[in-house]
Amino acid sequence: MSEGRENEMVTDLGSVFLGPKAENAEVFEKLLLEAFRDHVFWRRNFHPEDGFVVRETEKHAPGYQHSISVLSQELLGLLGELKAGVPFFSPRYIGHMTSDLTMASLIGYFATMLYNPNNVAAEVSPVTTRMELEVADQLARMIGYDTGRQWGHLTSGGTVANFEALWVARNVKYLPVAVRWAAEELGVTGVQVPLPDGSSADLTELGLWELLNIAPDATLDLAASLHRHVDDPYRAVELVGHHSLARLGYQEFGRRLSAEFGDSLPPGVVLVPSTAHYSWEKICRSLGIGGAQLVHIPVDNRFRMDTAALQETLRGLAARAQPVIGCVSVIGTTEESAVDRLDQVVQVRETSARELGMAFHLHADAAWGGYAASIIYGPDGKRRSYEETLASYAPEVWPEEGVYRGLAALEHTDSVTIDPHKLGFVPYPAGAISFRDRRVRELVATEAPYLFHRGASEWGYIGRFIFEGSKPGAAAAGVWMSHQVLPLDARGYGRLIGETARGALALHRRIDGGDWSPFQVVLLPRPDLNIVCFAIGHPSFQTLEATNDFCERIYRAMSVGEERAARQIDYFVTKTVLRTGEYGRSVVPILDRLGFSYDDYVRAGGVSVIRCTVMDPFLAARRGRTDYIEGFMRSLREVMRAQL
Amino acid sequence: MSEGRENEMVTDLGSVFLGPKAENAEVFEKLLLEAFRDHVFWRRNFHPEDGFVVRETEKHAPGYQHSISVLSQELLGLLGELKAGVPFFSPRYIGHMTSDLTMASLIGYFATMLYNPNNVAAEVSPVTTRMELEVADQLARMIGYDTGRQWGHLTSGGTVANFEALWVARNVKYLPVAVRWAAEELGVTGVQVPLPDGSSADLTELGLWELLNIAPDATLDLAASLHRHVDDPYRAVELVGHHSLARLGYQEFGRRLSAEFGDSLPPGVVLVPSTAHYSWEKICRSLGIGGAQLVHIPVDNRFRMDTAALQETLRGLAARAQPVIGCVSVIGTTEESAVDRLDQVVQVRETSARELGMAFHLHADAAWGGYAASIIYGPDGKRRSYEETLASYAPEVWPEEGVYRGLAALEHTDSVTIDPHKLGFVPYPAGAISFRDRRVRELVATEAPYLFHRGASEWGYIGRFIFEGSKPGAAAAGVWMSHQVLPLDARGYGRLIGETARGALALHRRIDGGDWSPFQVVLLPRPDLNIVCFAIGHPSFQTLEATNDFCERIYRAMSVGEERAARQIDYFVTKTVLRTGEYGRSVVPILDRLGFSYDDYVRAGGVSVIRCTVMDPFLAARRGRTDYIEGFMRSLREVMRAQL
Repeated sequence: MSEGRENEMVTDLGSVFLGPKAENAEVFEKLLLEAFRDHVFWRRNFHPEDGFVVRETEKHAPGYQHSISVLSQELLGLLGELKAGVPFFSPRYIGHMTSDLTMASLIGYFATMLYNPNNVAAEVSPVTTRMELEVADQLARMIGYDTGRQWGHLTSGGTVANFEALWVARNVKYLPVAVRWAAEELGVTGVQVPLPDGSSADLTELGLWELLNIAPDATLDLAASLHRHVDDPYRAVELVGHHSLARLGYQEFGRRLSAEFGDSLPPGVVLVPSTAHYSWEKICRSLGIGGAQLVHIPVDNRFRMDTAALQETLRGLAARAQPVIGCVSVIGTTEESAVDRLDQVVQVRETSARELGMAFHLHADAAWGGYAASIIYGPDGKRRSYEETLASYAPEVWPEEGVYRGLAALEHTDSVTIDPHKLGFVPYPAGAISFRDRRVRELVATEAPYLFHRGASEWGYIGRFIFEGSKPGAAAAGVWMSHQVLPLDARGYGRLIGETARGALALHRRIDGGDWSPFQVVLLPRPDLNIVCFAIGHPSFQTLEATNDFCERIYRAMSVGEERAARQIDYFVTKTVLRTGEYGRSVVPILDRLGFSYDDYVRAGGVSVIRCTVMDPFLAARRGRTDYIEGFMRSLREVMRAQL
Repeated sequence: MSEGRENEMVTDLGSVFLGPKAENAEVFEKLLLEAFRDHVFWRRNFHPEDGFVVRETEKHAPGYQHSISVLSQELLGLLGELKAGVPFFSPRYIGHMTSDLTMASLIGYFATMLYNPNNVAAEVSPVTTRMELEVADQLARMIGYDTGRQWGHLTSGGTVANFEALWVARNVKYLPVAVRWAAEELGVTGVQVPLPDGSSADLTELGLWELLNIAPDATLDLAASLHRHVDDPYRAVELVGHHSLARLGYQEFGRRLSAEFGDSLPPGVVLVPSTAHYSWEKICRSLGIGGAQLVHIPVDNRFRMDTAALQETLRGLAARAQPVIGCVSVIGTTEESAVDRLDQVVQVRETSARELGMAFHLHADAAWGGYAASIIYGPDGKRRSYEETLASYAPEVWPEEGVYRGLAALEHTDSVTIDPHKLGFVPYPAGAISFRDRRVRELVATEAPYLFHRGASEWGYIGRFIFEGSKPGAAAAGVWMSHQVLPLDARGYGRLIGETARGALALHRRIDGGDWSPFQVVLLPRPDLNIVCFAIGHPSFQTLEATNDFCERIYRAMSVGEERAARQIDYFVTKTVLRTGEYGRSVVPILDRLGFSYDDYVRAGGVSVIRCTVMDPFLAARRGRTDYIEGFMRSLREVMRAQL
């Protein structure tokens, strides 16, 4: 336990970041130099008898002088260029999901980068591999997983984390078929399998539909139980691998399915709410599942998955015997920060198991919202009740009870994606994936001859369970340092994220109460976490297309582009399109208020909204001289008038 | 053109790295502070009227003081832990592919990390997206691609780069079927397709085998030509997408193939040399191609793909009408740094097209060796002849002519993976993928509603063509800075990599000439680039298993593990196993010298070798007080005696 946790004193969030005006420059510089010099003397103290490769006298040689001049000149050039960047550090930036980073993570990242550890294997990262596993453990605990059973690690980002989850889900889904084939080859009989409806059956007597509807836990137990039925468990493992979809590939596996079961079933599908991130389509395409097998479940007016529609979809799939590889629930949508009622999704899964005999992998894409789960833990690591949680953010009424329940239900999933490089406020690249049951690792494991050494401990070479190979140990150290300073509970990250929600709610309330005439600012509902979206109407806009165009113009005037540099902009937003195909009827209340019909919306293809992501904890804190929300509203008004 | 390039003065490699004894600490610290302070004042100068969020008076408050104390304490803790890391910066480290990094990349990375750009879209990384594209352009030019036609970008590493290449290869392979279905739906007839043997045919008259054997270029032309046959090209694009494997997924696509063509062909395969990196198996498994469809082509005694065997395999595949999705050639194997005779692989591809009517994607996995292509360019950017190249490294006879020809043939591939975070000496994460024909991007493109804005220029949102989403702009800046200081030609990276080869060759020569009795050190052949491997025999070792065990013990004594910290080790190596399944007969000369038979080798499963990766340009430079090679040999001798 870090000293910070033992001490009950509350962290001042003003000390966590470098600050919008680099208020903490002095302490940052001191720690930066400390880290650098410490490293320098580590090098000097390693076999000091070796002497210096570059001697002081050689530094006066023209070749050396020239090289250093080139380096200095290029750095000055880079620094000049970087100033064309975007001021994410300022409360004036409420655009994309990017902001200032914690000092702890920046300094931790830099300090570690000098050592250049590679978290593909502990042999080249003895320190940072351990940190990665510690961080994974902390995230798993926050999700509510049993830390003794879970498996998690860092990834380059949310896409790879989600990819790995669905890769595992696909392999688990088809595993019972491979186990059956292995059992047949081994001449093993009498293996009993529990079915989702509570009954059980003999493995060899199941039809394809039943084989593809064994619960993930039961599937992993099934593979383990085969090992117990034979003298040589390694042979069983080998044979299951031999018959797996992973090894055979879809073409050969499909041929065998047809040969054994006659007409194979319709393609396996993946269920996602309509608000799911666009990367899910990439993932389904690349895994060979197919973009068309991604089934969008409608969302309600709060942009949360409509669980009645989910239940209905499952009934339809069961009726035509179409297997479900996985169901994805979103905790913090990219567009609205909506938190699915994961507790209700879990109930639907239970009902479908009981009534329809269906089973599937349940994944939470909490890339954005995962860190918000810290709000439901007290400093003692124990769960807090809804009332206790609510009390921390008074007088704001946040979180809503549905949000609390959604976060608390994370423990019932099979896997969760959480991106530390989003609401963890640490440098890229830092995504993370957690699996509830570590046995899934074996389904994706491969071995590198130059990394895996006999007798190596399990943690010595985690790369064999991970899609990516080489990856920065510095990223793990960045996350680790940040968690040391801000623990994953109500006092640490819970406070920081609460402040972003407070800012978003204040922004929402004040826009709602603002005088925008002759314009009409049509807000999406109060956000679950910290993203505020609104459409803009005006009596002169005859069509939804014209309304959308105006939104686009506002966005352009308030964002960096080829025609506008950061220094010309006072406040920064972004925009998005709630597309007809995905959003369906969920935006009808917005259309009503804008005065357009559903047909208008279908014709226009969607409704454009300005999107404000609040990551800055100081937006509504009134710690500086500026009322940023007031400033933003004034700026927006001016831009609106100018663009009309 | 940077000022460094205009100037003809030669860079002193002693100025490129911080140095084994941090010889360049003073200049590094100066530039680090410059970068940090420059950033601080950028923040201060952005809307100075906003005032400070944290005021000086608040810094005396107990909450603030406490937080900063926690941060300082945790940093000191981290710095202490990091010292259990591995001294990659020292010439004494010749283990894994990890070393010191260029100062340019480290400082560039850090300076940029403060700005936190995200290269998913230019809107959140206007500067570093441009740098990423510039770097991709530089790498493509080094490969020999037409920079006006190529498409390339950075990835988290070689695995994702290779994954993206094979993802594209798979989509291109099955595209003609989708185009045919789209043409049928559009009622388009008369589309002519050039076949690999030089003839041409009507698209609708081709059988499945012919459809799956259209050259990648011709396939992309075919899709474009369909667009010209219809009034509404967007409709054509849409329909091709609609019928694509990516959209339908393997299950539905396979069902349709069977319905239209009767029994569909055997599964598509991927050809790799036996030395290919283990990640190719992960990639084939995840893409749904299947690990079993990865066909290993034997390698010769120099560990290069046996091109006669490749030709033979292709004949066999053609005979049973089994399509080839792609062929991978390795430029710098992970174990031996062997460079395939890519020029000969290209010839085999031409022969197979002409004689067997086969076509497939050719990919070079140059993750390790790609930067070595810099040696064949002069400072004027022009190709140098073999003799000119050779002259740069005299008196060393390097590169071998076959290596030169392999590197020069990169231009004939369809895609190449190169990892800047390997022989580019820059921080993780920095892999890179280059495609010869930018049209392939469209086959993997997806759009994010919140990122893609009408009228956005092509470079504005490169993320839609890329597997990953958020990624560090700092990584792009690190590579970019390093390329500014060390251009991709014989004077820049060519010199640096030449020095690593010089070190490896000297190490090889001196081990070869060393007195090891009573041990026998059996070296693999002279390396193509910079990795030296050897087995260790002794008269008392009765079996190959015992010989391999001894190698394992040597490795353990000369590497960091749970039982041994870096400070207890004088020199660092690693080891690998040349496994029977992959290496087959290529290791017979090694076995002969060790006194074991092929049967012994089959029984033992492989032969273990110590592996020394030379990335340090100072290993043989004799710039310090220490003769590192002498020291290494002495240390190895002692360890060998102690472990016997």
